[in-house]
Amino acid sequence: MPSNSFGSLFRITTFGESHGPAIGVVIDGCPAGLPISTEEIQAELSLRQAGKSPYTSPRGEKDETEILSGVFEGKTTGAPIALLIRNRDADSSKYEPIKDLLRPGHANYTYLQKYGIFDYRGGGRSSARETAARVAAGAIAKKFLAHFGVHTCAFVSEIGGIAMPPPILKNLAALRKKTLANPIFCPDEKAAKKMMAAIEAAKKEGDSLGGILQGAAVGLPAGLGDPVYQKLEANLAYAMLSLPATKGFEIGSGFAAARMRGSEHNDTFETDRKGTIHTAGNLAGGTLGGISTGAPLYFRVAFKPTSSIEKPQKTVSTTGKAATFRLPPGSRHDPCVAIRAVPIVESMLALVLADALLMNRLSKI
Amino acid sequence: MPSNSFGSLFRITTFGESHGPAIGVVIDGCPAGLPISTEEIQAELSLRQAGKSPYTSPRGEKDETEILSGVFEGKTTGAPIALLIRNRDADSSKYEPIKDLLRPGHANYTYLQKYGIFDYRGGGRSSARETAARVAAGAIAKKFLAHFGVHTCAFVSEIGGIAMPPPILKNLAALRKKTLANPIFCPDEKAAKKMMAAIEAAKKEGDSLGGILQGAAVGLPAGLGDPVYQKLEANLAYAMLSLPATKGFEIGSGFAAARMRGSEHNDTFETDRKGTIHTAGNLAGGTLGGISTGAPLYFRVAFKPTSSIEKPQKTVSTTGKAATFRLPPGSRHDPCVAIRAVPIVESMLALVLADALLMNRLSKI
Amino acid sequence: MPSNSFGSLFRITTFGESHGPAIGVVIDGCPAGLPISTEEIQAELSLRQAGKSPYTSPRGEKDETEILSGVFEGKTTGAPIALLIRNRDADSSKYEPIKDLLRPGHANYTYLQKYGIFDYRGGGRSSARETAARVAAGAIAKKFLAHFGVHTCAFVSEIGGIAMPPPILKNLAALRKKTLANPIFCPDEKAAKKMMAAIEAAKKEGDSLGGILQGAAVGLPAGLGDPVYQKLEANLAYAMLSLPATKGFEIGSGFAAARMRGSEHNDTFETDRKGTIHTAGNLAGGTLGGISTGAPLYFRVAFKPTSSIEKPQKTVSTTGKAATFRLPPGSRHDPCVAIRAVPIVESMLALVLADALLMNRLSKI
Amino acid sequence: MPSNSFGSLFRITTFGESHGPAIGVVIDGCPAGLPISTEEIQAELSLRQAGKSPYTSPRGEKDETEILSGVFEGKTTGAPIALLIRNRDADSSKYEPIKDLLRPGHANYTYLQKYGIFDYRGGGRSSARETAARVAAGAIAKKFLAHFGVHTCAFVSEIGGIAMPPPILKNLAALRKKTLANPIFCPDEKAAKKMMAAIEAAKKEGDSLGGILQGAAVGLPAGLGDPVYQKLEANLAYAMLSLPATKGFEIGSGFAAARMRGSEHNDTFETDRKGTIHTAGNLAGGTLGGISTGAPLYFRVAFKPTSSIEKPQKTVSTTGKAATFRLPPGSRHDPCVAIRAVPIVESMLALVLADALLMNRLSKI
Repeated sequence: MPSNSFGSLFRITTFGESHGPAIGVVIDGCPAGLPISTEEIQAELSLRQAGKSPYTSPRGEKDETEILSGVFEGKTTGAPIALLIRNRDADSSKYEPIKDLLRPGHANYTYLQKYGIFDYRGGGRSSARETAARVAAGAIAKKFLAHFGVHTCAFVSEIGGIAMPPPILKNLAALRKKTLANPIFCPDEKAAKKMMAAIEAAKKEGDSLGGILQGAAVGLPAGLGDPVYQKLEANLAYAMLSLPATKGFEIGSGFAAARMRGSEHNDTFETDRKGTIHTAGNLAGGTLGGISTGAPLYFRVAFKPTSSIEKPQKTVSTTGKAATFRLPPGSRHDPCVAIRAVPIVESMLALVLADALLMNRLSKI
Repeated sequence: MPSNSFGSLFRITTFGESHGPAIGVVIDGCPAGLPISTEEIQAELSLRQAGKSPYTSPRGEKDETEILSGVFEGKTTGAPIALLIRNRDADSSKYEPIKDLLRPGHANYTYLQKYGIFDYRGGGRSSARETAARVAAGAIAKKFLAHFGVHTCAFVSEIGGIAMPPPILKNLAALRKKTLANPIFCPDEKAAKKMMAAIEAAKKEGDSLGGILQGAAVGLPAGLGDPVYQKLEANLAYAMLSLPATKGFEIGSGFAAARMRGSEHNDTFETDRKGTIHTAGNLAGGTLGGISTGAPLYFRVAFKPTSSIEKPQKTVSTTGKAATFRLPPGSRHDPCVAIRAVPIVESMLALVLADALLMNRLSKI
Repeated sequence: MPSNSFGSLFRITTFGESHGPAIGVVIDGCPAGLPISTEEIQAELSLRQAGKSPYTSPRGEKDETEILSGVFEGKTTGAPIALLIRNRDADSSKYEPIKDLLRPGHANYTYLQKYGIFDYRGGGRSSARETAARVAAGAIAKKFLAHFGVHTCAFVSEIGGIAMPPPILKNLAALRKKTLANPIFCPDEKAAKKMMAAIEAAKKEGDSLGGILQGAAVGLPAGLGDPVYQKLEANLAYAMLSLPATKGFEIGSGFAAARMRGSEHNDTFETDRKGTIHTAGNLAGGTLGGISTGAPLYFRVAFKPTSSIEKPQKTVSTTGKAATFRLPPGSRHDPCVAIRAVPIVESMLALVLADALLMNRLSKI
Repeated sequence: MPSNSFGSLFRITTFGESHGPAIGVVIDGCPAGLPISTEEIQAELSLRQAGKSPYTSPRGEKDETEILSGVFEGKTTGAPIALLIRNRDADSSKYEPIKDLLRPGHANYTYLQKYGIFDYRGGGRSSARETAARVAAGAIAKKFLAHFGVHTCAFVSEIGGIAMPPPILKNLAALRKKTLANPIFCPDEKAAKKMMAAIEAAKKEGDSLGGILQGAAVGLPAGLGDPVYQKLEANLAYAMLSLPATKGFEIGSGFAAARMRGSEHNDTFETDRKGTIHTAGNLAGGTLGGISTGAPLYFRVAFKPTSSIEKPQKTVSTTGKAATFRLPPGSRHDPCVAIRAVPIVESMLALVLADALLMNRLSKI
């Protein structure tokens, strides 16, 4: 129920506003005995760091995590793990002039309606800054998954209508390496170049672009996910649509399945040389009946174009007076939020899988 | 956590297998004082009833609900409401010959991996029959919503690649009426005819079709949904992907947003003659920052083509031996599962909104 | 959150009113592969059956359970297990004359305040009849525990101020046998006789008695219970105070500990011949820091005297007019509710332990 | 489920070890619009501060809370409120010599069994230091309750067998004032003096004492608490037994009810001059059927004598070798833990009531 927690057994609770003293996360349910260090968390956090390239916003702040609890002599103890990230580079005075304007595509209108109060500085709790806490927690989830041979990856597959060809997922480590080496987290160099050109063009016009990310995981045992409401794809859809700026989710064949026939779409079963059963194709995307088959898991997430654009926009004030919305000079915003979402999507995927792995310990007597 | 419950405050727990003695649902959290009758539940249940037309499967059984608890003198008492639906027309002997074959596109493989045991008769717990319990619960959720002026609708918008034009959502009552009058729940007669022809063609070839449903709601107050993890669209995505055969979800502009620019996509704010603030357009689909704006809510759900087809399919047995899968003679299956999913999608939408309405009572002091 | 569910991982949801069509329970989270039969559930249910002796009320109805789901070929499948018990012997007309009177010691006043509506027939949802559903679920929990060598017992240790001497818990099977053989579930024959005399005396005067039950479990591994909020004793206290008519709970030394010194109270550690570490005494009652030590678990629960008595009592009507409350002729009530609570306390203990056993699977990597 | 969270709707999650960098709490679900300041939290925290008198341990550290999130311009925003308390005075080197000894009455044995790892410094997560986070959260819960006219109090009612006479609860503010003015939080000066003498005597012998606390609340509306599992007394029992060193809980008449007759115990209903219905007596302790009647709520909690005593104790090492346990020189421990538990018991009471107040918003349509 509590709206700031995610997950059932491997459960995170995040807190913090963009321009408050700090953001952070409490991870409750991580089993004891997992080796974890500040450096490992830091490495993941640096991936979503702003200012990496001209394609993301220049917020200069370096996120530094402090492990407050739950780790003793380098290992988790079974106690809750609290991670703290101070907000350092937070100049909120520039938000003063726009605090009474409804910001198109943003949440200040709905927060005011719901709560009667809104911490407008940098978007407050609605800021994407909250996702840094998810990435910090995701670092621990990934470590947990790696212990069981499960590996994850997320990457940009389309920006501004420019799509890369479908990648091969079996060698996910190589795909992840290529992704992280690319300034816009797209593992296909050729497509990435075109995307970068499109981003630059939009930026010049004070505009922004939308995009599509893909997430994938390999090494999953069959059996992850619960049959009815906690289907693996339902948990993933929930995780992804809980990210700011997302508009859609699809697993495996996704919306394209709606245009296929059963005889095309069904993945038939076969046996390999070792006698292991698997599906011949994988249009399902790695699950059947909500439960992992053992085949690679893959899905796609649609991101809308960044709402914060330099072009002036029509709006009204909180009291309903017509006005023009202009971004405060020096305010930081990405021309395409999808790019920075890559480590976040991967983190949410890892959190969903860590939860499912634990849950699966409960299925048989 | 428990995998057979859905919702936080308006919470359902379903039980039952396709060919067991009964299915049912316990609704916990419905406030006291809501008038409810067996007839109202029955009316909704009859919508998902099999055998309505050549476009759905001929399972003759009529679902009859019994209210076991939580209603006294025609009103809810605040106690849990248990609804029971007996399984009458359940001949499971015909499943005997295929019990050791992995059924392409079905869950018997994954259930066996997860639990080591599988009630194979009619798909057991993985059967779409479980959704009848959701529809029964949804009838109560809809009654609850109507009390607050919130109304819902779901309809077929595309089958086999044939799409109807985008409907106008403001007059949702009229749209719902047209939908229910149509044999395949598509409110656009012209498109529906083409879809029916496509279904018949596929059926003749022993094959099946996929489709896309749209869901919508009007009358929502601004403020429904919680900011971070319980975003309204996240809960909807979770609800929809928890339905059998779903492959994708999108809200508002959805995947199309990924190909738009910020200046096109942002819904600008304006004030109407009465001084009420609203958005000029509604590409967002009714939420901002995960919270309802008061504009109509709309979303789309992709369904894969029915996995059960008459065409023989390659497969293996549970022990890995190559085999051919053929449906048992007389087994019931829909040529397009999307059609029968219409009342189910509407029910899940109603359950999500009922939960959000209750949750919203907690937002302000 | 939902108020009609109990437990986290081995979770029950009960429903039903005393004079409605049925009561029942859904058990969600019982692992697959546990053999279970209707007879085993029936055997436990018969223990709380009314009319067994002059010391309990003569409600003649025989509870019959139907397993609606979750069991296939005699074993649990991992799907939710729904159990249904029809209410047969429910004549509610006699409650008509007292429906507008506030019943001393009963819940109709508070239900009316909370819900604005009250199913007054036989106490509706507040009736102890709801506990039959707990006992049915408890039968499955006990079966689950037995699989892991954990055994439970509950018994009457005091009625009307007459207390039996502290029993030896190590041979719990023998203690349970003696308990079940006694008409008032007290394993000490001598004390039981005095208690029965006291009950008869009170009954003659149209009055009732309170009592104290003890619960115990052996065979627990060390490690059950979670350190902070889900301490084993916290979960037990919650379970016991969720039973009708309970006023207190104590574990191990309980309230007597408040009058002891640390040097008396601390259980020192020692090693047995096999090198196993255990505590020399067991004033703690089987836990340290909320987690089981492996020593026998034991606790006590205080029950108030039955509120329904034949003596006339002063009261007011629901509109505040002075009145005299008299039990409807032929209404059934126990002279001492503690007796019938024995199988219920044991069931709640079993449910708490089953949950803790599952939870403990998650503690280490 | 997550073991470090407490509450359903007004929900806290605590983290931190005694000798780690910090402890803290995240409060999720506090409605927006509640005025709250650091000073108010600090005032409550100072009540459990060590070193106040010779009757509590001399840990010199002053707890300072930092509000990290959820408060904007002096009011709660609906976002999670994170409170951080740094551990400053934490010299853990002195625990080195005893790290391999099982400490009588402590949790290191059970933690090691459960997790295979134990942060032994100052008791780690099992330390009563965790309760400082509960008190910080309790300060906010009390502020919330006060907004609705609900007030709470906890006090020492018995130490070392010396009991104060039952207090009058109606003027709870005066009782609280007297309590806070007393060095051992006992509002009865005469009894308090005797208790202090007993504490000094035990201390001189290197020993410790147990005690009993009473908690109370006034101003409650009728209707708080849920009928079956979330009974108000069940939630209180759970809250109290989740505190370190507690062995028992009783509400109203408690264990004494077991020795009473129904005709004595039933609180009869009557109407006051204004026509308001209330119970004549209040043996029930403020609830009927688990739901508040509007009468004062009161309960008692038993605390065992402090486990840490200066007297040497027999024990074994973690590998089972016989040893003598001696407290490290300079280690801090209270001669009677019950005293310092006073603000903690009050905080838990406040948290339970805040949750119940919110829950009650959901009971009627």
